[in-house]
Amino acid sequence: MNHLTILSRDAQTYATLLGDLSPTGLVVEQVTDNPADVRVDQVSMLLSEPDLAAQIIQDCPRLQWLQSTWAGNAPLIKHSKTDYTLTAVKGIFGRTMREYVATYLLHFSRNVDAFHPRVDSRQRAKPMQWRPPAVSTLRGKCLGVLGAGDIAANLIELAKCFDMRIIGLNRRGESEHAFDAMYSAQQAQDFAQQCDYLVCLLPDTPATTHFINGAFLSQLKHHCVLINAGRGNSIEQQALLDALNRGQLSAAVLDVFETEPLPEHHPFWQHDKIWITQHTAAISNPADVIQVFCENYQRWQQQESLLHQIDFEQGY
Amino acid sequence: MNHLTILSRDAQTYATLLGDLSPTGLVVEQVTDNPADVRVDQVSMLLSEPDLAAQIIQDCPRLQWLQSTWAGNAPLIKHSKTDYTLTAVKGIFGRTMREYVATYLLHFSRNVDAFHPRVDSRQRAKPMQWRPPAVSTLRGKCLGVLGAGDIAANLIELAKCFDMRIIGLNRRGESEHAFDAMYSAQQAQDFAQQCDYLVCLLPDTPATTHFINGAFLSQLKHHCVLINAGRGNSIEQQALLDALNRGQLSAAVLDVFETEPLPEHHPFWQHDKIWITQHTAAISNPADVIQVFCENYQRWQQQESLLHQIDFEQGY
Repeated sequence: MNHLTILSRDAQTYATLLGDLSPTGLVVEQVTDNPADVRVDQVSMLLSEPDLAAQIIQDCPRLQWLQSTWAGNAPLIKHSKTDYTLTAVKGIFGRTMREYVATYLLHFSRNVDAFHPRVDSRQRAKPMQWRPPAVSTLRGKCLGVLGAGDIAANLIELAKCFDMRIIGLNRRGESEHAFDAMYSAQQAQDFAQQCDYLVCLLPDTPATTHFINGAFLSQLKHHCVLINAGRGNSIEQQALLDALNRGQLSAAVLDVFETEPLPEHHPFWQHDKIWITQHTAAISNPADVIQVFCENYQRWQQQESLLHQIDFEQGY
Repeated sequence: MNHLTILSRDAQTYATLLGDLSPTGLVVEQVTDNPADVRVDQVSMLLSEPDLAAQIIQDCPRLQWLQSTWAGNAPLIKHSKTDYTLTAVKGIFGRTMREYVATYLLHFSRNVDAFHPRVDSRQRAKPMQWRPPAVSTLRGKCLGVLGAGDIAANLIELAKCFDMRIIGLNRRGESEHAFDAMYSAQQAQDFAQQCDYLVCLLPDTPATTHFINGAFLSQLKHHCVLINAGRGNSIEQQALLDALNRGQLSAAVLDVFETEPLPEHHPFWQHDKIWITQHTAAISNPADVIQVFCENYQRWQQQESLLHQIDFEQGY
């Protein structure tokens, strides 16, 4: 029998879903949302959020396999303990990310705030007037994606649906997916100059830290909208504030931050050109995560190599 | 030689575009945005907005062909003069309509207003807090389209892009396009019960007037969002207000109205559950309109039948 510990904010949901599926030979050892409660001696197979798991793995001598429930595995990759198999959830964020990105592309393109302004209650009471604000179109515009991996590939169909051009950037400037053009990290400035909309999906690695810095931002078109749904470390915060303040780009939609939750008095909260979406861009759906776990569990039983293994050296 | 009169709010743009294309044998007779200025005796071929053209056609004894620049031809269809060929612009609104519909599907699904609330300036000065609002997904939801014609067909690819089900309703309940299901006008209540999002693209005909009435609205799901980008006559205004007030549906996005511009003191302006987009859903792009005109002009020269002819009896 294989013993699974579930440590998750959605622990009960995962337990229920697993109970319905009843994978052969799997015993649920413990179900909890509190790292302090975990019977660490018993942990061999673990289903957990990376930030919670990082609090206990040092004390789990028998840990063999950890199936992560989230896309952001930095707390585990940076951890000193690496003598176990860590698997990520992949392939399940793409469709949700597509909706998130489309929401804000269209929000700015269609000028939604000009139609439905943020006004105080007295202004709401005044008669309104028929004065159509200008609307634009996504058609023919260029969507640039930093971090042209599997999640980014889901944006290709989105770009096609709205007749946009889509270009990608990754370390080597190569992709198996049908981007209209690919750029390497060395071609970042050429890439930045093309973008009407820029989506950052970079993972958190040493190479991506502050990739979006002053030099990069200075290449953007003034109407460019930046959407960061990757990791907070990609953006140099002060450089972004400076660029927004001098009109170098028109807006930033930020889902992720170097420190989360974003501190209460952080200048991002009240900046007129910043939209904060509180790390909701591509929330894991427990049913999808359980699919990934069960597929890997079957491979585990058959002693096959697991899907979506993290390489601790490369960091993804 | 063929003599063309241009009567349009974009008259100069059309004249410039035509000048660049210089169709064989075409002479631009007059270019104006003012119906009162038109030399009505000279009008034989007319490129015009329907509301402007309706003011002069009675006085144009030589009118043979009118190419409309807009989708809404009711002012001409209702007109007593019908002894000429009226052609519509079709096939050019679809992609823009797709963007408009997607904007508001995603706006509500992703709960954009909860992330970026409309607050007064004092509230903006308070520190904000990290409390992620709930977000939903379009995946698996049902998009219903009233008026399942060519413009509506552009929403099929949109639905596919976001893994939605798309159902259509038209008079006979038949379509050449790949809707997941079709309903006839007699099956309106069955149709209404399915919709998570309802888009109305009905043309202005006697049969569509107040199609969306109290009985129809009473069949909707409480979370349903209604988007009217067809014509204002489709909705019985008081029935919509009543339904919104009792929570029968969650919101209405209205682009078109029985009277446009919408009068200043109309209750729609200040209703919390109504979003007004001031007839901008699918604005004609003059370059696209000129393509349609030129294609028809070539057919006119070759004495072929014109594309997108309006049948005055059927009303579309």
